[in-house]
Amino acid sequence: MGIKDEFAFIQKISPKRSSSQDIIVGIGDDAAIVRPNINTDIIACKDTMVEGVHFKRETMSPYHIGYKALAANISDIAAMGGIPTFYLVSIVIPPSWEEDELVEIYEGMEELAGIHEMALIGGDTVSTKGPLVVTVTVLGKVEQGKGLKRSDAKPGDVIFLTGTVGDSAAGLHILLSDNTKDMKYDSLVRRHQQPLPQVEAGRMLALFSSVSANDISDGVASEAIEIAEASGVKLIIDRYLLPLSKEILTFGEEQAYKWALFGGEDYELIGTTSPENWEQIEVAFNEKNLAITKIGVVQKGTGKAFLQIGEETLELKKEGYNHFR
Amino acid sequence: MGIKDEFAFIQKISPKRSSSQDIIVGIGDDAAIVRPNINTDIIACKDTMVEGVHFKRETMSPYHIGYKALAANISDIAAMGGIPTFYLVSIVIPPSWEEDELVEIYEGMEELAGIHEMALIGGDTVSTKGPLVVTVTVLGKVEQGKGLKRSDAKPGDVIFLTGTVGDSAAGLHILLSDNTKDMKYDSLVRRHQQPLPQVEAGRMLALFSSVSANDISDGVASEAIEIAEASGVKLIIDRYLLPLSKEILTFGEEQAYKWALFGGEDYELIGTTSPENWEQIEVAFNEKNLAITKIGVVQKGTGKAFLQIGEETLELKKEGYNHFR
Repeated sequence: MGIKDEFAFIQKISPKRSSSQDIIVGIGDDAAIVRPNINTDIIACKDTMVEGVHFKRETMSPYHIGYKALAANISDIAAMGGIPTFYLVSIVIPPSWEEDELVEIYEGMEELAGIHEMALIGGDTVSTKGPLVVTVTVLGKVEQGKGLKRSDAKPGDVIFLTGTVGDSAAGLHILLSDNTKDMKYDSLVRRHQQPLPQVEAGRMLALFSSVSANDISDGVASEAIEIAEASGVKLIIDRYLLPLSKEILTFGEEQAYKWALFGGEDYELIGTTSPENWEQIEVAFNEKNLAITKIGVVQKGTGKAFLQIGEETLELKKEGYNHFR
Repeated sequence: MGIKDEFAFIQKISPKRSSSQDIIVGIGDDAAIVRPNINTDIIACKDTMVEGVHFKRETMSPYHIGYKALAANISDIAAMGGIPTFYLVSIVIPPSWEEDELVEIYEGMEELAGIHEMALIGGDTVSTKGPLVVTVTVLGKVEQGKGLKRSDAKPGDVIFLTGTVGDSAAGLHILLSDNTKDMKYDSLVRRHQQPLPQVEAGRMLALFSSVSANDISDGVASEAIEIAEASGVKLIIDRYLLPLSKEILTFGEEQAYKWALFGGEDYELIGTTSPENWEQIEVAFNEKNLAITKIGVVQKGTGKAFLQIGEETLELKKEGYNHFR
């Protein structure tokens, strides 16, 4: 039915708890005003999810849609080494969506925002005859000059990856099949519907200089190529070092690696750093009980990424191996 | 045809000129990083335009769509007394749009951004089977504590309005009729297609304390009610003081006032201030050759706005366009 009263709807989705002290003007004016900390840079990113393109209602509840739309943006802040602080939401609403469902979208966002002590400071609600569109803007902060760029990879660097990869794609596979009710797959389904952005990992990486980073939104292959291109180097990833969960391996190694390399939406961090830094980073992550794995090395080169499988080396493309084309 | 190669498209729409020194990381990473000035607050706003709801291709070229989407957001920054600095664009693209037309949307934005020395720092491009959706986020800045709120109107204040109002609605009327080719209406059509956000006016108002402000996105009536509600006062507007262009008056007084009160999209500023401030503001605007007019007074009250027509007083309602009714 869409929204009956726009003003009442905005009341419903406005933050209930008292908000951060950095907010000078919150929701309800022409724009929001926030006060930056001293010696702090501002991070800004924006990501859009379209019904039927990025999600289907059969696999994602309204709550999950909201949660994931915000998570994808927080992950971008994490990949810069930053702390997410504020978010703005634009929602384009078809008549087929009930107001209760729309409120659930915001509740999904609010749940995740609460974990990171973020505040909703603005946005827009408009109608459409097309599909639902959710556009989230997240603002974050990072100490001046400490932001992690994807252009800082250097020959000789170690390539690392947080957590495990491929799980989100496996989770989607399960949601689209009839195995959904099998509890042994719950963790994979959860990684698809409610991914956890790696803010803590990003913050630890930002303590070090000469770290490049990307978040895994499009699969390890695509993200590795982006680092290689931005840095003008060659990335060589050892397939057998890619961290996989035991759940994903129940689908067989070949399938698991395919999801890891080309699936995406894992929202882990891939990056590079010097061997000296790597030793310290590994220790620091172990102390915090955060998973991080060395998966390869950076060499001189011109913007390409390769997968090493034993003796064989294949060039990685954004959507598959070289030899698939 | 939509976009054939997303990466080539992003190249095309990326800023050509060298950008502001405040940008630490621009387009092309997970997120942008910008450095705020010292003693400066950050302003953030976000506005969405949907094809078929906010514009039709018959009345707005792609260039105009881009120009206006950014203008609406800059206007929100102006209404806070701020300087617009950066923008992020999310575009949801149906297959029926040609890549050249999409590039024109960005060119329309770039034209206006150039006037304000703003830089495009991020965004997203995604596909859809629905209508085109353009969501723009604008960041701006204002001296700490100097932001203009709509909640600062006080009994005894003067109500003022910049420029003339109703012209955008008149321009749309002309575009939908057969008079488009009549050059005498060019200024009205232009005000609909390429509205000018009142950044300079907002900056001058921010020099004074105790100024409330709103931009005219939904018509004078709706904006006056918002100030009245936010400030807990009564606004009384004298109909005969409303500033109208000579072009709009060719449609007759009754129609002109209707457009002024309920048309919207003029992106002028309405606000309130003390009689003492008003005298200085009027002088300051005259010196800069900027139009500003006293249109009424603020009285004690509880969130309502009234229109005075000679001896008669009518309560104003938000009869501006409400997308959900």
